[in-house]
Amino acid sequence: MNANQSHEMQGKGDEAVINNALPPSATLPPSDYIIIGGTGDLALRKILPALFWRYLDGQITAEYRIAAASRRDMELDDFADKIRPFCENAFTSGVASEADWTGFLSIITLITLDVADASGGDRLAQFVNERANADRPTIYYMAIASSLFGDATRLLKQCGLVTPQARLVVEKPLGHDGKTSRAINAELAEIFDERQIYRIDHYLGKETVQNLMALRFANVIFESQWNNNHIDHVQITVAETVGAGSRADYYDSYGAIRDMVQNHLLQLVCLVAMEPPSYFNADQVRDEKLRVLRAIRPVALDDVQTGQYQEYTGELGRASDTETYVAMRLMIDNWRWAGVPFYIRTGKKMAQRASEIVITFKQRSHDIFQRNGNGDVGGEPNRLIIRLQPSEGLRLQLISKRPGPGGMRLFPSELNLSFDDTFEERLPDAYERLLMDTARGNQTLFMRHDEVFAAWEIIDPVLAMIAGNAPSLYRAGSMGPQDDLLAADGRQWIDPYED
Amino acid sequence: MNANQSHEMQGKGDEAVINNALPPSATLPPSDYIIIGGTGDLALRKILPALFWRYLDGQITAEYRIAAASRRDMELDDFADKIRPFCENAFTSGVASEADWTGFLSIITLITLDVADASGGDRLAQFVNERANADRPTIYYMAIASSLFGDATRLLKQCGLVTPQARLVVEKPLGHDGKTSRAINAELAEIFDERQIYRIDHYLGKETVQNLMALRFANVIFESQWNNNHIDHVQITVAETVGAGSRADYYDSYGAIRDMVQNHLLQLVCLVAMEPPSYFNADQVRDEKLRVLRAIRPVALDDVQTGQYQEYTGELGRASDTETYVAMRLMIDNWRWAGVPFYIRTGKKMAQRASEIVITFKQRSHDIFQRNGNGDVGGEPNRLIIRLQPSEGLRLQLISKRPGPGGMRLFPSELNLSFDDTFEERLPDAYERLLMDTARGNQTLFMRHDEVFAAWEIIDPVLAMIAGNAPSLYRAGSMGPQDDLLAADGRQWIDPYED
Repeated sequence: MNANQSHEMQGKGDEAVINNALPPSATLPPSDYIIIGGTGDLALRKILPALFWRYLDGQITAEYRIAAASRRDMELDDFADKIRPFCENAFTSGVASEADWTGFLSIITLITLDVADASGGDRLAQFVNERANADRPTIYYMAIASSLFGDATRLLKQCGLVTPQARLVVEKPLGHDGKTSRAINAELAEIFDERQIYRIDHYLGKETVQNLMALRFANVIFESQWNNNHIDHVQITVAETVGAGSRADYYDSYGAIRDMVQNHLLQLVCLVAMEPPSYFNADQVRDEKLRVLRAIRPVALDDVQTGQYQEYTGELGRASDTETYVAMRLMIDNWRWAGVPFYIRTGKKMAQRASEIVITFKQRSHDIFQRNGNGDVGGEPNRLIIRLQPSEGLRLQLISKRPGPGGMRLFPSELNLSFDDTFEERLPDAYERLLMDTARGNQTLFMRHDEVFAAWEIIDPVLAMIAGNAPSLYRAGSMGPQDDLLAADGRQWIDPYED
Repeated sequence: MNANQSHEMQGKGDEAVINNALPPSATLPPSDYIIIGGTGDLALRKILPALFWRYLDGQITAEYRIAAASRRDMELDDFADKIRPFCENAFTSGVASEADWTGFLSIITLITLDVADASGGDRLAQFVNERANADRPTIYYMAIASSLFGDATRLLKQCGLVTPQARLVVEKPLGHDGKTSRAINAELAEIFDERQIYRIDHYLGKETVQNLMALRFANVIFESQWNNNHIDHVQITVAETVGAGSRADYYDSYGAIRDMVQNHLLQLVCLVAMEPPSYFNADQVRDEKLRVLRAIRPVALDDVQTGQYQEYTGELGRASDTETYVAMRLMIDNWRWAGVPFYIRTGKKMAQRASEIVITFKQRSHDIFQRNGNGDVGGEPNRLIIRLQPSEGLRLQLISKRPGPGGMRLFPSELNLSFDDTFEERLPDAYERLLMDTARGNQTLFMRHDEVFAAWEIIDPVLAMIAGNAPSLYRAGSMGPQDDLLAADGRQWIDPYED
């Protein structure tokens, strides 16, 4: 394909072609990954190591090409030295050899490109067009600040690179509120069709998050009880041990609600709460998630609790009301979930790094063992606990008989499925999966623009409501400020734990 | 208490006293175990080792007494030598010391007693009355042929031993059909009140069998689906590897239906199928089991398949139509189970020694992954597998996402609760538990006479129906003759397996 041909295919691409997602079992045609901002932190720490692992696995072959486009002029050797530390676990685990490394480096090209002053576009176009054909996806990964998305996408268009086989990958933060989010999206939408835009939320690439969909929609024993007749409430905890640290200045203008709730936690709520789609494809899954977001009742002030770890303003060097912790009570106004609170919380400097979704089932309507002297232990409800990190797994909490000749003594026990233990293969990082999905043309695990907007419509009023309110201080290493959300409902947080 | 006092309390005892089951947490008052037939196989292999383990555990103390009553005049040393081999695992596992053994032997008394000619009753009465008081249970374990039950119970009455604190333990076979069963029961009921009679089915003492009740009635996630809306069918397999062997002559007059189905398998059916009792006590649990037995539809000829292993007649030394294998389709005519077949099977000389209950849930009504190219694997229904032996455990078969970047590929996985792995303590043998329940006065895990009769009412017509029909021969080491019961329903047996 030459530049003229590709010119005719610019702009919003042919729908039949760009929506032609490959089934998972198909062999992928080789793709080109173009990382704009290819020497930045995201590229070095996440994107390139993920591509290396896919290379080791044979999914990315010598036919693939990777271009790291950056303002900085850099030699491949120096670049290799920069990414190597983040790939080191492949070598220490014995998976990768030096020959693998050489092979991987041989498919990498460095391109000097400054999207801000539109220089270097010719080099990029030349690189892409060298192999361009209608079957070869070109994936442009915007590993740059969202303020540069407009420049970057206009440059791609100007160089004739916005072909049907072009795909655009962007990451959060996609704006600071609904308004800025819409503005960023408008810039992308001017150049690319929605079906070419892949908005990454790496939580959606986690194995257990995807397994949540398999769990719900392939297992009647769960889906038949997945409603307000059987479920008492849902808790989602995403706890970090790190603080804002060197990012404090940046973080202070976001806070936990924008940084974590608007994207990751609301996405998890959607996956737990959504109706079964007719078919597991991108638009149907995203339609159902959107319906959940739109059914979330406007959040009231007493549905929100914010916190800030005590050392935060010291790290920041100035006073701040930015929340480093937030807990919210979300009510989903539909037939399935009426009356079932979704409690979500996330925070920095917490006692542990752990993310868990806890589904608490309703208590049995009658206790036939009540007069057996079993005390409270028989009173524990059933819980399904989906652990996202650190180690991904699934636990079903049951009540069992305590073995032994001492009569029918009940106690809580667990059925376990630990992915780490069960599968001998290494679990791929979320980025690995999502990067391959871009090559495959599968948008199911990426956010659609209307989802992002709907999430902001929930979050914007919350931000307005808490503006100027001082968050409760909490001790670093705790699980946040003392709860007053669940306590008001006679419930309590279930802290993550590992066996 | 002297003989005169006890005489006044003979016959059907005071109901308030004999029904005074102790809660499991209560400290048991010391009891006397009187084993009639104390030097026989059952006593040596099962009862005395079980009592020894309870002694090691501290549940049976030096205040307890054990009398082995037998026609044979035997010295304690010789008796000790006879039971020691069956207790040896307590020593090899390091649990028992020689001091324990000496201590255990010190609570054993040998009494010469011939129930058939009523001699030795005075020695037994003297032994019992030495410690008798209203708080001390005396447990008479009939480790003798059921033809001697009448003599034995009459002897007990004659000696003034049928006090309110007396309890009678009997074991299968309790008759050869409904008629003989009623006759045996009539002999017992003449002397003892039903609430003093403990009919042992050692299957009911197994940990997982009891856990089945905890599982169902303490866990809403199971009980809410425990009906014909959610369950497709139930399978119960009790497979033995042993043949009739040296018992062939005895076995030939019973066969698998009388030997296993009438008691063990029907009891398991009851526990799976019964309605929740209002309270977990002996009469309510047994009322509910009885309701199941009475709801079982009369078995038709095409609901039964019998088999005989090829070597059986050779072992027996003559021709025989006795079934060593039987499979049955049972339909329970009530609102909960209408349309859900219970397939049960049991046999000798089968491929493995294993007992499992498999609950197969209905398939999901719609497969959202159907067009994902997952093939048949996503089509596996959910199953709950309750393993009774060899190692007791619980498995919940689910469909999960296969980890990896290859899209949403589904595969069957399992949540596991293995009692052996989970609990460091040794699991007590069924006899240990049941023996302590007799001391505790808890009849929940023992069969009531009306249950036994109701089971015969199911079985008697089956025996009449198949009489004279030659069973299908099957190869030793197979899982019985080729199935024609489940196949007719488009289903198949799920053979037990261990991880």
